Amino acid sequence: MKSLYVIKIGGNVIDNSENLYNFLNDFAGIEGHKILIHGGGKLATDLSHAMGVEPKMVDGRRITDIETLRIVTMVYAGLINKNIVAQLQRFECNAIGLTGADANLIRANPRPVKEIDYGFVGDLHEGSVASGKLSDILETGLIPVFSAITHDGEGQLLNTNADTIASAIAIALSSIYEVSLVYCFEKKGVLTNVADDESVIREISSTEFEKLKSDGIIAGGMLPKLENAFKAINSGVNEVYIGKSDELALLNEQLFGTRLFA
Amino acid sequence: MKSLYVIKIGGNVIDNSENLYNFLNDFAGIEGHKILIHGGGKLATDLSHAMGVEPKMVDGRRITDIETLRIVTMVYAGLINKNIVAQLQRFECNAIGLTGADANLIRANPRPVKEIDYGFVGDLHEGSVASGKLSDILETGLIPVFSAITHDGEGQLLNTNADTIASAIAIALSSIYEVSLVYCFEKKGVLTNVADDESVIREISSTEFEKLKSDGIIAGGMLPKLENAFKAINSGVNEVYIGKSDELALLNEQLFGTRLFA
Repeated sequence: MKSLYVIKIGGNVIDNSENLYNFLNDFAGIEGHKILIHGGGKLATDLSHAMGVEPKMVDGRRITDIETLRIVTMVYAGLINKNIVAQLQRFECNAIGLTGADANLIRANPRPVKEIDYGFVGDLHEGSVASGKLSDILETGLIPVFSAITHDGEGQLLNTNADTIASAIAIALSSIYEVSLVYCFEKKGVLTNVADDESVIREISSTEFEKLKSDGIIAGGMLPKLENAFKAINSGVNEVYIGKSDELALLNEQLFGTRLFA
Repeated sequence: MKSLYVIKIGGNVIDNSENLYNFLNDFAGIEGHKILIHGGGKLATDLSHAMGVEPKMVDGRRITDIETLRIVTMVYAGLINKNIVAQLQRFECNAIGLTGADANLIRANPRPVKEIDYGFVGDLHEGSVASGKLSDILETGLIPVFSAITHDGEGQLLNTNADTIASAIAIALSSIYEVSLVYCFEKKGVLTNVADDESVIREISSTEFEKLKSDGIIAGGMLPKLENAFKAINSGVNEVYIGKSDELALLNEQLFGTRLFA
């Protein structure tokens, strides 16, 4: 099986043009098949302010109303996505910018209205990712770059969580490739001591994870991140890395962040 | 040789959602390989106003300064392009939205500064279109949908004329496909009498064109349009159609607008 990296970056990388430049340079240097998924960052908020559109919140949750959907489509799928692609081209990385609507690659269900109407938000399900078509694109030598916009197949674009998209792509392609799923965030990896940025745990197996949980070493916001990572591993993904975007180049030596495996 | 339609629509189709819906429905029904190129329309101007960015003009020519480039990237490559793709997916047309940066498909030269600095505008040259890669995408069964944004290969996106892109794509692919280039505009075709919308000339050969010119039947704004069309035909394009977007369905019977040929 060929190997494939599915790499997700968040707003903290995108908001700083120097960080983004360095990250994309490193991304271009990753060997073999790869896919990038990017979040949004502050640019969408900035545009909302410039247009006088106030972010809509209900019970502290962000709502994607029609105006917000227009803004995230412009900023994520247009401005950010195409600038990332143009930068990658400069680094001789043949990127192609995509949403889930393109080539019908990621079809989502509009989130059902219960207590809260989240608006134009799409949830993924088994079969959401068109793995065959995505593999066709990879095999032509292209590097897919996804913004976190999907569609419902009925003509409606939908806002979708970027972490969820990364995980769904990794799982769907694990039948065709040996997939490494890589989450970039603000820390160098999973830390034994949150106060010490260098206390990175290099590797965690699923059994070690259970022990670290019961010993209370992994707790708080890191817990759901790791639960999701091991869920992906249980669904066919070979390994998950969690680390800092500016260390991505270490991935070629398997020395990036924390490696999670079965 | 397989046949290929390269179809260009302008802002007049995009600005009216009912027209656009009908056009995309008809486009989805066109048989065989096809590529759509879309212009911008009023949405970019609307967003500029909403953001308080005034269009910059020098000697009556529109200048693409950095703010304008950001806006057209958001509106053309994001909002319009992805909504067209989502609509086409609804019609079972497996569209993929692209700029020239994506897959390095269209590389342009920044327009040299002479009397006027046009800003971030890209001009095409021979070899601008990566015909092999574009053909790869077509052969996977996908329908490329281009917004009129290109790049310089050095990380810079560029605003480029949509008519020029359509013509360059048609010419570049004419070595691989039998290409019909289709321009949709506000008239039903080339008219013998501009006051009579039904006076459409069905076919014009290049020799007939010379006669129509010298007889003064074709003049004004139609002249450069047709000059460009015959230039494309002289460069390998099989035929060029000029007609009205709401009659696109007639293309399957070769009864759309005016057909220009060698």
